[in-house]
Amino acid sequence: MAVEVERKFLVTSDDWRANATGASFRQGYIDTSDETTVRVRIAGDAAFLTIKGPSEGMSRAEFEYPIPLSDAQDMLRDLCRRPLIEKTRYDVSFGGKLWSVDVFGAENSGLIMAEVELDHPAESVPLPPWVGEEVTEDPRYRNSALSLSPAPGTQAP
Amino acid sequence: MAVEVERKFLVTSDDWRANATGASFRQGYIDTSDETTVRVRIAGDAAFLTIKGPSEGMSRAEFEYPIPLSDAQDMLRDLCRRPLIEKTRYDVSFGGKLWSVDVFGAENSGLIMAEVELDHPAESVPLPPWVGEEVTEDPRYRNSALSLSPAPGTQAP
Repeated sequence: MAVEVERKFLVTSDDWRANATGASFRQGYIDTSDETTVRVRIAGDAAFLTIKGPSEGMSRAEFEYPIPLSDAQDMLRDLCRRPLIEKTRYDVSFGGKLWSVDVFGAENSGLIMAEVELDHPAESVPLPPWVGEEVTEDPRYRNSALSLSPAPGTQAP
Repeated sequence: MAVEVERKFLVTSDDWRANATGASFRQGYIDTSDETTVRVRIAGDAAFLTIKGPSEGMSRAEFEYPIPLSDAQDMLRDLCRRPLIEKTRYDVSFGGKLWSVDVFGAENSGLIMAEVELDHPAESVPLPPWVGEEVTEDPRYRNSALSLSPAPGTQAP
């Protein structure tokens, strides 16, 4: 078991975009009845099945396995609830850490979120000038929640 | 994606037991809100994460991945709903097919079920004399249901 320790922020400007390289992510969730999530993700040409436990602050247990792309396509088509999450993930270095900036599409168009993985919950990280409000513990901004109801301020079609 | 095509029967006698070899299974389910199931199974020293789609008669989509034993132990302990399913699975050859005879323990003590995988839904298989009522399409006898409420006729402790 890995423990994912992560902080998430809303992004407030485009200043992160210079030289950032992006990859297309498409992911969905098998509907669970508690806070455990079961995610199917296609990231570029790779695919993963990921189980995450309930959040405890900024930490969650995470179990991730690479799976065949065709399995992920089948599960996204047949088993994951609608709508799927579509986003482009950009890798951005700042202050010695690798940040992921997610530019959401489809139902969550307009939402841009940045996240950074910590080595432990007490780790202090310098915050880039292009992040604003921290939403680490706001359940509305979990990707699994975004596939149920779009983020505040975005426009569902 | 594999498609699992399976028929299940209640077992009515002990005549299958001669020479049958058994392995301990311990499995649990991440609680889902529809008929998709997410199963964590420890079978002897091996472990698997299995996603199954809704049943269509005797067929279900099935996606199965070997996972580290310690991951399965963690997920069974922390993420799967109670009670877990405990059973001993015996492999029994009959009429050219390999049958699995599951002798349930814990909350489902007293339940013995036999299942056989078919190559296609129309395949005709000879039925062993030790099977009785067919329960293929009886949702109460799905293992995922047995972990919610014990089988008819068994004694919850």
